Amino acid sequence: MTELRTVVAGAGGRMGGANIRAVAASPGLKLVGAVDRPGASSIGKDAGTLAGIDALGVSVTDDISALLDQTDVIIDFTAPAATVALAKLAATKGIVHLIGTTGCSEADDAEIAAAAVAGARIVKSGNFSPGMVALAVLVEKAAQALPDYDVEVLEMHHNLKVDAPSGTALMLGEAAAKGRNISLKDHSVRVRDGHTGPREFGTIGFATLRGGNVIGDHMVILAGPSERIELNHRAQDRTIYANGAVRAALWAVHQPAGLYTMADVLGLND
Amino acid sequence: MTELRTVVAGAGGRMGGANIRAVAASPGLKLVGAVDRPGASSIGKDAGTLAGIDALGVSVTDDISALLDQTDVIIDFTAPAATVALAKLAATKGIVHLIGTTGCSEADDAEIAAAAVAGARIVKSGNFSPGMVALAVLVEKAAQALPDYDVEVLEMHHNLKVDAPSGTALMLGEAAAKGRNISLKDHSVRVRDGHTGPREFGTIGFATLRGGNVIGDHMVILAGPSERIELNHRAQDRTIYANGAVRAALWAVHQPAGLYTMADVLGLND
Amino acid sequence: MTELRTVVAGAGGRMGGANIRAVAASPGLKLVGAVDRPGASSIGKDAGTLAGIDALGVSVTDDISALLDQTDVIIDFTAPAATVALAKLAATKGIVHLIGTTGCSEADDAEIAAAAVAGARIVKSGNFSPGMVALAVLVEKAAQALPDYDVEVLEMHHNLKVDAPSGTALMLGEAAAKGRNISLKDHSVRVRDGHTGPREFGTIGFATLRGGNVIGDHMVILAGPSERIELNHRAQDRTIYANGAVRAALWAVHQPAGLYTMADVLGLND
Amino acid sequence: MTELRTVVAGAGGRMGGANIRAVAASPGLKLVGAVDRPGASSIGKDAGTLAGIDALGVSVTDDISALLDQTDVIIDFTAPAATVALAKLAATKGIVHLIGTTGCSEADDAEIAAAAVAGARIVKSGNFSPGMVALAVLVEKAAQALPDYDVEVLEMHHNLKVDAPSGTALMLGEAAAKGRNISLKDHSVRVRDGHTGPREFGTIGFATLRGGNVIGDHMVILAGPSERIELNHRAQDRTIYANGAVRAALWAVHQPAGLYTMADVLGLND
Repeated sequence: MTELRTVVAGAGGRMGGANIRAVAASPGLKLVGAVDRPGASSIGKDAGTLAGIDALGVSVTDDISALLDQTDVIIDFTAPAATVALAKLAATKGIVHLIGTTGCSEADDAEIAAAAVAGARIVKSGNFSPGMVALAVLVEKAAQALPDYDVEVLEMHHNLKVDAPSGTALMLGEAAAKGRNISLKDHSVRVRDGHTGPREFGTIGFATLRGGNVIGDHMVILAGPSERIELNHRAQDRTIYANGAVRAALWAVHQPAGLYTMADVLGLND
Repeated sequence: MTELRTVVAGAGGRMGGANIRAVAASPGLKLVGAVDRPGASSIGKDAGTLAGIDALGVSVTDDISALLDQTDVIIDFTAPAATVALAKLAATKGIVHLIGTTGCSEADDAEIAAAAVAGARIVKSGNFSPGMVALAVLVEKAAQALPDYDVEVLEMHHNLKVDAPSGTALMLGEAAAKGRNISLKDHSVRVRDGHTGPREFGTIGFATLRGGNVIGDHMVILAGPSERIELNHRAQDRTIYANGAVRAALWAVHQPAGLYTMADVLGLND
Repeated sequence: MTELRTVVAGAGGRMGGANIRAVAASPGLKLVGAVDRPGASSIGKDAGTLAGIDALGVSVTDDISALLDQTDVIIDFTAPAATVALAKLAATKGIVHLIGTTGCSEADDAEIAAAAVAGARIVKSGNFSPGMVALAVLVEKAAQALPDYDVEVLEMHHNLKVDAPSGTALMLGEAAAKGRNISLKDHSVRVRDGHTGPREFGTIGFATLRGGNVIGDHMVILAGPSERIELNHRAQDRTIYANGAVRAALWAVHQPAGLYTMADVLGLND
Repeated sequence: MTELRTVVAGAGGRMGGANIRAVAASPGLKLVGAVDRPGASSIGKDAGTLAGIDALGVSVTDDISALLDQTDVIIDFTAPAATVALAKLAATKGIVHLIGTTGCSEADDAEIAAAAVAGARIVKSGNFSPGMVALAVLVEKAAQALPDYDVEVLEMHHNLKVDAPSGTALMLGEAAAKGRNISLKDHSVRVRDGHTGPREFGTIGFATLRGGNVIGDHMVILAGPSERIELNHRAQDRTIYANGAVRAALWAVHQPAGLYTMADVLGLND
């Protein structure tokens, strides 16, 4: 098989480095470019060296245009404005554009969707970990199948994390709420302390643990009469997102232009 | 709502007793009959007393025929021959027939399917626990979505259980094998001790714990690169099967004649 | 072995019933009396029938004095005033007095201690479950051995429980605080929501789950650099307290007069 | 505080590299030497570079003798013969000698003990992870306190591991056996498949899971009437052994000559 010629955007960032390492380690992909914003300290450096591995012979550039004709895949965990611009470029060449960028506005999302109509093969996901994407789908299904079971979401992260619950815990709560056809905001219970009264039926509870250097564990519990389902995800390190992006690339290259999610990549929407 | 007039078959057995108690405790159902095989010691006794609760004014009989015109639902966790006979009777009256009987041959299954065509509303399942049925569907989905993840099945039961792995663990293994489109028999690893060599790719491993009076815990693990999903079921007591049968009854009474599974009841096949 | 002649106090209450059932089921003990407060509706009824099992031929009485000369053991999960009075009676005869009563004041505890000096063999514990008592000792040891590990306490109970965290979770937090030689009150974190900032070193965190009819699960986590210990207790039903009281009786009858805890019964203070 | 001048033995091996990295990262320790066997490819290389971090200005040597007068601590995860020789050298200078070497014969152990008598401050342990050492002590205590509870040991490791159960699982089994005052060999059940019959009282069961790149999870379950204790250890990466060695060094330097274990370091034998 020909290797997919891959460009990593945001090469100087933490996820950029992880994506460079994942591409370098994947037989089906070959790093042909690495871009960063103009003025970034990464410009001109070797992408491999920057990512803490052996030099790859690819210098970081601030101009992707010269690379577009030799690019099959762009992996992009950057910022909304850069992502929208890349999507438009991807559309012109039918490039696979993997978007892990967060914080897009509705207008940004509309532009990304338009780029998919115009020819880009886009996979956009709030989380590229295959296991977590699968879990969210399972949580939605379970919440729907067991409508009278109490849903609780538990997460544990390292002791430096400054917010609670984690974004992923909230995403799992959203998945459960979607399965129930309710609004998470109106049904979530995020604090329990002192006299709480009995659990209100139909709510989704959250609980948070912090300690050590735990990467991230999540559990969704569905508790009914004399039985419980527990749906857990345990992350060992942060390579899971880059691994998922590689998997998405290998899948998307065989799809027609369009806007996809990681659940599509995993065949969970079939 | 009118209560569903319910007959429990196998009234003198352990599951029969559980079903009698569940019907008695469920607002939507009313026990109108209890049957057992001719010569059983339960014949003539009050079904409630037999089940360890207050008398219900329903005597156990060995002849269901007199009851058929006043029966909406038959709950039947008995033996293949009795079940086939009941299915045929159910077909004549459009009765809801819930079948938890195990050990049916292909010929038995064919007769049951024919009864469904002929008018019975049948829900047949190897396990009526809503949580476990949901879990099996999730396991199949996860095994399919994550085809390169290692699947392991773990179970724990009380110290009097005499076989391993549990039937439910094997059922979960079958669900994973179905998701992978492989045969469980050809891919299961049931023993690991001493020098095993590395794990063979594509196998499904089983591990067994025994202790105390644990009712039954099951876990399916899907382990991939730097992440794991764990799909657990914990049973607190054996009422979960009878509770599930009640739920199935309340659902099936609104369906056309046909052969259904608990996954249909839970909407997991939609 | 001669069976220990046992009296259950508070015979009409929920724990009284559990204790009657446990005594009836234990080969080494024999129920010889059951007492309740004057005017209670249980007075005059058969203790077995009251506890939901077969009649035991023992009528509930409001006057223990006539029984004292034939009593080896009193099992008492009642109220402080009754317990202090029973301890004084136990002292006069060298009786084994098992106290599961909660809410005793310092003055009550002083009177109980005095009764132990005067001849009673008293085992007093806030929790008679052998597993939970052992766990609390393990938590204290672990918190001491791993002084720089983050301690988190998690519990799950049924959806009708009206307060959080559970008393047992707080007891486990106290055990950890004792191992660290700190005050739990000054170091506990009971709520995390929104922007929390990083975890403060040396604190003990609590998290609460509610759902289904879960009897009670507790977990204490000690999380350090790249490793975690999790110390869990899972209760299947409420017989564990009565079972522990029976075990304490069989142990205490061989001890000299004195005031003991369940940790002494389990040999955890040796 | 003066930094402890530390020599890492076996510098070219996997544990040697981990120990070099841990020393370099620890404020209280300073790498002053790195040794390997004569002829090893590591000889002459910079210890830091060898360990995958920045150069430390310390070249690997095959002769420790020149370093001894400037050495406070030797960290030694090598082989029995080398370890015995190092212990004798440590004895002459009162050096702290941390021994993670496995496979020592009784004769080796006798020589090591003699070196401790002669002046070395030795900490020898089959496992330097603080969490795992603590867990083993807790398991022994729990097995002793709950003598009639069924003990089960479960472990999960990556899919390349070629033997089962893990050495650590067996060590935990030994801890339980010690708490019961029985021989593990005569009481272990390592396989359950097919018709097993009921669990034999007093045995210790093992179960093994394999999958993904799991570093190592271990669980010891004590299951009794209606309750379970689960004592778990989860390892995130292999730094835990080197971290424990650093902790042992900081402790041992304040102790008199003698032979210690990691349980002593953690204060678990007080």
